[in-house]
Amino acid sequence: MSLQSKSCTRPESAGQRAERTDDLLGRLANFLAADLERVDRLIHSALESQIGLTNEIGRYLEETSGKRLRPMLTILASRLEGDAGEPAAHAAAMVELLHVASLLHDDVIDRAPTRRGRPTVNSRWGNDAAILMADYIYAHAWAIALQWLPASLLAVLCRVAAGMCDGEMFQIEKRDQILTEQDYFEIIRCKTAGLFSACTHLGAAISGASEARVAALQRYGLELGCAFQITDDILDLTGDPGRLGKEIGTDIACGKQTLPLIRALEKADGGDRAFLEAALNNTPSAAEVVERVVKYGGVDYALNVARRHAQAARECLEGLPEGPVSGFLRDLTELVVNRAY
Amino acid sequence: MSLQSKSCTRPESAGQRAERTDDLLGRLANFLAADLERVDRLIHSALESQIGLTNEIGRYLEETSGKRLRPMLTILASRLEGDAGEPAAHAAAMVELLHVASLLHDDVIDRAPTRRGRPTVNSRWGNDAAILMADYIYAHAWAIALQWLPASLLAVLCRVAAGMCDGEMFQIEKRDQILTEQDYFEIIRCKTAGLFSACTHLGAAISGASEARVAALQRYGLELGCAFQITDDILDLTGDPGRLGKEIGTDIACGKQTLPLIRALEKADGGDRAFLEAALNNTPSAAEVVERVVKYGGVDYALNVARRHAQAARECLEGLPEGPVSGFLRDLTELVVNRAY
Repeated sequence: MSLQSKSCTRPESAGQRAERTDDLLGRLANFLAADLERVDRLIHSALESQIGLTNEIGRYLEETSGKRLRPMLTILASRLEGDAGEPAAHAAAMVELLHVASLLHDDVIDRAPTRRGRPTVNSRWGNDAAILMADYIYAHAWAIALQWLPASLLAVLCRVAAGMCDGEMFQIEKRDQILTEQDYFEIIRCKTAGLFSACTHLGAAISGASEARVAALQRYGLELGCAFQITDDILDLTGDPGRLGKEIGTDIACGKQTLPLIRALEKADGGDRAFLEAALNNTPSAAEVVERVVKYGGVDYALNVARRHAQAARECLEGLPEGPVSGFLRDLTELVVNRAY
Repeated sequence: MSLQSKSCTRPESAGQRAERTDDLLGRLANFLAADLERVDRLIHSALESQIGLTNEIGRYLEETSGKRLRPMLTILASRLEGDAGEPAAHAAAMVELLHVASLLHDDVIDRAPTRRGRPTVNSRWGNDAAILMADYIYAHAWAIALQWLPASLLAVLCRVAAGMCDGEMFQIEKRDQILTEQDYFEIIRCKTAGLFSACTHLGAAISGASEARVAALQRYGLELGCAFQITDDILDLTGDPGRLGKEIGTDIACGKQTLPLIRALEKADGGDRAFLEAALNNTPSAAEVVERVVKYGGVDYALNVARRHAQAARECLEGLPEGPVSGFLRDLTELVVNRAY
């Protein structure tokens, strides 16, 4: 039974949703187990160093790793035409390391105290170590990618890495302005969806899929990434802090303009608009922010937009042969908008 | 007439030294003009972006660029067996961009207010923009390198980039300890000499030189880089602020343990030792620090060590065919220890 059909007939409790998120990620990890072990070994070797401090932070990053969605996507796409083996594992490790490194710098920039319920590297070892650790990881990520990927796919990774910086830089440039929806999509396409898109692009290309299929999978990743990021923004307001590993409203408290907030700002009048604008420069009561964003339909609006992107991602899968790979790719379009964490 | 022979017979004035530094760098830039123009075009394109802020910082970095020693070394080595053209220009642009990016992060870590007499990117646009700009440059540096270099040489660049982070991380790890000379060499080999070595290694390999010659050039770069860094440390104490574009003693004021200081700390007794140790955590009078470092022979000692490394670099050139390339490589071993800036 698909996540979507169930969630349409009866609203799920937070517990049910978490259970189904765990279930799909568990089945996916199981399906990809042999490749994910290769990926973990590559990531482990990339985080090793002769320098004690680097090594210590490396171990910590392994302990506090996330859902490994990006490597899973890469490997799934690489299985479109059979088992793509080492090149796929290397591409998957590379994108995960690129992601980990970008989070380290993002957390320095956002002065984030915690991530996934644990202190960030910047808060535990200082900004300096966090900046350098990311640079160290970048260098090793390229070393891993170089071993197996052709120049054309390495160029895809260069573009996405530069794009992630562009997105974050654009966000800094616009720091003192209220973002438009267009600005918002520019940022999330660069920062999140671009990397998702690179995952499925690389995976499909490595699998030897046709040009048309590679393009479809690339588009799938882009749409999936947009749906994923918008859902992240929604979870920041309505999620369960215990499962998210962070307090509610932290994005807005550190000045991040998310889609639900941007929508609410568009719709809110006088006092409420002023309150929400001020929330970006303060650390107000999260409950009061959430109340107003919900009141002006920001959460519902964002949820609908996320669903449209998930639907667009599903449409990119038309024509794929039926089987576990296309099944999981389809399930993921439902997971990204219906997940608990 | 060589720089070395002149400086041995009669001490030069600061003005004479500056004139001769300008002269050699000018002749070298002239000899390599066509290739350096290619390098500049590649660097310019790497610093361009659709994002206004990225673009603005990119233009600033071009205006405030340094001596371009690393690209010059790369291209010189690539001319060992004729003109190596595009691949050499791409390798040279890559190493310069790697250097520029690492300086951006170093300046954030050191909280440096100025570089080459101009505000640093972190002091002008903030740490966040400086961190991201470096990441953006890294991504473009790899994109440039990928176009022409084989995987084996790209792997050299990955190792040197990771090593630069290792060196800086080791420095952070040892922040509260007095460094030994061995620690110091570990750091400068990783941070400075490793990149110099990569320049000549890449250049020689691109030129199609024999394995033995590539190894000799790689060693030359390593020794030259050590001599260069030690001289940098000395200039921080005895140089001309106008020509250096920074105040005297800024390394020590920001807690950096340089070879002259490490030597003086080894030799100094009671009060002077305590004064020098305290200098690393204070911003004392630079003149008083310099006086004590000189008193305990720190500057003379470091100068001798730098000269030994320059001599070792010269020895790596034995067996090269006589000509402008080997002539300039030899002149550079003198320049690095006798330069004014």
